[in-house]
Amino acid sequence: MRGFLIIGNEAFTEPFNLSDLPGAGRMDILCRCVSQALFLSHSIRKNVEVYLLLLGKPDPPKAIRIRSGELRRMSPDERNIGGHIRKAVGFKPQAEWTETNSGIYVARKTLRELLAEISKSYEIYYLREDGKDIREQVSKMKNPLFVLGDHTGVRREDEDTIIEFSSGILSVSKLSLMAEQCIAIVNYELDRANL
Amino acid sequence: MRGFLIIGNEAFTEPFNLSDLPGAGRMDILCRCVSQALFLSHSIRKNVEVYLLLLGKPDPPKAIRIRSGELRRMSPDERNIGGHIRKAVGFKPQAEWTETNSGIYVARKTLRELLAEISKSYEIYYLREDGKDIREQVSKMKNPLFVLGDHTGVRREDEDTIIEFSSGILSVSKLSLMAEQCIAIVNYELDRANL
Repeated sequence: MRGFLIIGNEAFTEPFNLSDLPGAGRMDILCRCVSQALFLSHSIRKNVEVYLLLLGKPDPPKAIRIRSGELRRMSPDERNIGGHIRKAVGFKPQAEWTETNSGIYVARKTLRELLAEISKSYEIYYLREDGKDIREQVSKMKNPLFVLGDHTGVRREDEDTIIEFSSGILSVSKLSLMAEQCIAIVNYELDRANL
Repeated sequence: MRGFLIIGNEAFTEPFNLSDLPGAGRMDILCRCVSQALFLSHSIRKNVEVYLLLLGKPDPPKAIRIRSGELRRMSPDERNIGGHIRKAVGFKPQAEWTETNSGIYVARKTLRELLAEISKSYEIYYLREDGKDIREQVSKMKNPLFVLGDHTGVRREDEDTIIEFSSGILSVSKLSLMAEQCIAIVNYELDRANL
């Protein structure tokens, strides 16, 4: 098992215009993150979970969970993934997960609640530019889940919460990469380590 | 300098619907390749060129060249990049490059013509799953340009042409990754090698 949690600081929590994903609180970033986390060429990875925490207007927080093994009819383009997220945020979220499409779930969860839940199944790692080199750390991991921010990073108070739950702070590059690039690289390093 | 050439076997060579990039001969793949090749978080890499060879209907071949250092007003989402490509394919292509937007050019070039031109400035490497591990090779490179196919790979006759011009066949993963994931990983390995 491996997982990713991406924090969308401004990502809209109501249905949005699929022809303007950047205008929906940079929903385009979250769509690309989902795509890079789950898809191979012509197939979907097994045993990957992606969590999105949407903190934008008008009704935050909303958490989305995507389980690769249960997915049906998702394709890797932004608009298709955006459509799935759009549908999920249209549901009234409960404290527990509601399935909005095969393999896609929505719930009302704060970052702390979400991390408390996730940390039962995963070792949590926080991705930040000044962390330890992931290449040196990857062979030691077991069921890792990586937390990362969107274009605005992670708010200070959220960072404190993540670090509280995390097994370490890791870096994938000295450059400031886009979130979805970090995910592609993490998958690559995990694949090479046969995790 | 580093570069990428992505072959879009079915990518439309006329203006297409931006709300259905997958339906335009999988233009979504080419858009994501451009995004992953050029963008960092909040900035664009210097000295990267992306070439797209569009081989789909109704007027192939059309080649597009994107020079990172000259770009203005491009953002990393598929629709924005698709808009730039859409504009470029609306031009009547000449044998030489026509600039269709700042940093974006279109021309009528076959794969052989394009490779003959590119190979004057770059060492050409062909990315294929059964190639040599890029990690072992990366430190020896100078001005590398990587050629890769879209979801249908590269046609046999095109492959022969690429190999004729190439310095080697390289692999980024034992898994069959999406083209844009290969690009993100190549950038990562080059960055680590300080190329």
